[in-house]
Amino acid sequence: MVDRGNEASEAPFLQALAGKQPRGRVPIWLMRQAGRYLPEYRKVRAEAGSFLDLCYTPKLAAEVTLQPIRRFGFDAAIIFSDILIVPHALGQHVTFEEGEGPRLEPISTAADLARLDPARVEERFGLVYEAIRETVAGLGSTPLIGFCGAPWTVATYMVEGGGSPDQRAAKLFSYRDRAAFSDLIGLIVQVSASYLIGQAGAGARALQIFDSWAGSLSDSDFEDWVIAPTADLVGRVKTACPDVSVIGFPRGSGPNYRRYAEATGIDGLGCDTAAPLSLMRNMQAQVTVQGNLDPILLLAGGDAMERRVMAILDSLGRGPFIFNLGHGILPETPIAHVERLVEMVHGFNRQF
Amino acid sequence: MVDRGNEASEAPFLQALAGKQPRGRVPIWLMRQAGRYLPEYRKVRAEAGSFLDLCYTPKLAAEVTLQPIRRFGFDAAIIFSDILIVPHALGQHVTFEEGEGPRLEPISTAADLARLDPARVEERFGLVYEAIRETVAGLGSTPLIGFCGAPWTVATYMVEGGGSPDQRAAKLFSYRDRAAFSDLIGLIVQVSASYLIGQAGAGARALQIFDSWAGSLSDSDFEDWVIAPTADLVGRVKTACPDVSVIGFPRGSGPNYRRYAEATGIDGLGCDTAAPLSLMRNMQAQVTVQGNLDPILLLAGGDAMERRVMAILDSLGRGPFIFNLGHGILPETPIAHVERLVEMVHGFNRQF
Repeated sequence: MVDRGNEASEAPFLQALAGKQPRGRVPIWLMRQAGRYLPEYRKVRAEAGSFLDLCYTPKLAAEVTLQPIRRFGFDAAIIFSDILIVPHALGQHVTFEEGEGPRLEPISTAADLARLDPARVEERFGLVYEAIRETVAGLGSTPLIGFCGAPWTVATYMVEGGGSPDQRAAKLFSYRDRAAFSDLIGLIVQVSASYLIGQAGAGARALQIFDSWAGSLSDSDFEDWVIAPTADLVGRVKTACPDVSVIGFPRGSGPNYRRYAEATGIDGLGCDTAAPLSLMRNMQAQVTVQGNLDPILLLAGGDAMERRVMAILDSLGRGPFIFNLGHGILPETPIAHVERLVEMVHGFNRQF
Repeated sequence: MVDRGNEASEAPFLQALAGKQPRGRVPIWLMRQAGRYLPEYRKVRAEAGSFLDLCYTPKLAAEVTLQPIRRFGFDAAIIFSDILIVPHALGQHVTFEEGEGPRLEPISTAADLARLDPARVEERFGLVYEAIRETVAGLGSTPLIGFCGAPWTVATYMVEGGGSPDQRAAKLFSYRDRAAFSDLIGLIVQVSASYLIGQAGAGARALQIFDSWAGSLSDSDFEDWVIAPTADLVGRVKTACPDVSVIGFPRGSGPNYRRYAEATGIDGLGCDTAAPLSLMRNMQAQVTVQGNLDPILLLAGGDAMERRVMAILDSLGRGPFIFNLGHGILPETPIAHVERLVEMVHGFNRQF
């Protein structure tokens, strides 16, 4: 157990992130908790125009952010937005087509890179900050999480022009023109730092860095494109906002979790479904851990889910821990399963 | 360094698998080395009818298995086949459409499962054994690797009806009807054991178990669907063929590699690209390690590839080690890059 001495609010989520000896209930929130599994979300989404319109309309973004808090009493809200706001703010063409992944005009050369313009990003970010302010006003004592994509993951989308199973285009770019790729990563770090600091300034009490594609890199690439840029990003944020906690989520990087936690300066480590509970428990001496119920098990529900939820709570619930999924909640998830999950987590007795 | 006391042939690949203090050159082979990046393969493939026809025509399967050995002098051949031979032999409908993944008629219920028929699998496997005998006759002193899919990975294809990003259908089946899913896994273990033993009987000197989708399971599911069935399978094979070495490849399971190596009885551990070299080096005290150059780096070639190849050799080349990729070779890979890779690996001086 560690006490990193941050000033902790009484909110269980912030207490857990501060590494305090936990009291009271185990906090819970779910990745993509504001989303398509909620009828009230689908209603707003249908009225909002494009997905980006929803992200950039503060009143609507705040509304969908608040919906799961009202319904389930989660211990944290996360601002409704997308990791591709950063490339979009840099002037890259980004679209979200219904039923497909996002599409971007790919950055393939140093010349493409030179056309990105960091000068006016804050104009666009301003709409997210406004959504954060509006959300915080409606949240009461529940803390709000801001977020961005990690530099490597954002770079994969910018170079591929979308998602990909193996991040091939980004890797080829990095292998063939390391200097240009390094410039791209540096630009994303700079703009993301400004974005996270802005989100904290608008009222976010914690910040999560999503590195969805960290798990396919070799150890040396992981050092160069995950560890170093994330440490740089966290350092800039901590210098500007020493009271804000940062959660890193390097998905699929189990064998590198210890190195990541040691080297990046994060307060909380998001763990994917494959992270063994024994590893997570060992890491509680170092950081707050967050995770890692299989979203497909939440979709299935029933006894199998209840047994696993209890196993996670028994293993991790007496240390600094935030209950979450190992990946985003699936749109098909029954609401009753989420209700049961929250009931179980909030009913867990740490003293038992 | 361990010496597991197997009788080792002089072939560097078998020496390495036996855990002997290595002498001579570092052995190398590549996953999917018989494949579309070779013009001589594409020629045979074009003449063969369907992909399954190629697998089930011993003369042609032997020919494409031998092609990369003739061209590059790899230290092991791997029989040209597919992990879906097992469901196909069980009577499940399987097709491979050009440019798409495989398609199977999904097993969704216990009733579907009951229609699978293990009685006649050896008839179909006989064509693979014949291909093995024909290949061995053409190989000279180069050893041949037989293989099968691991029970979990084969089950995911059988239940999903194909590949999938998150193995959702198989997971849902396991969560909702654990007994039936356990029966399916048991059936695959039984048939795969018979298949591997038959391949060894036909002349395969080593056997690899491909668990491509091991990396998405929680720790308890990993115990139930990866560790236990693999240990069962390896145990059956070792009892029947004590002189044959087994390589396990639980892709994406870095945090569980140690547990997997300890609990399954494998001689060699296949490691994916994300496995840190430090972890692999530590594991050399326990098993022979195999891996793990990024296939995308072999595609890129050049200085970046050469630096990484040297880093891998420097880190692992003085212990029991088999050079390989972290995943299958990509069809677009230039032959000159493969030639350079083999030259570097074979030129590495273990004593330096």
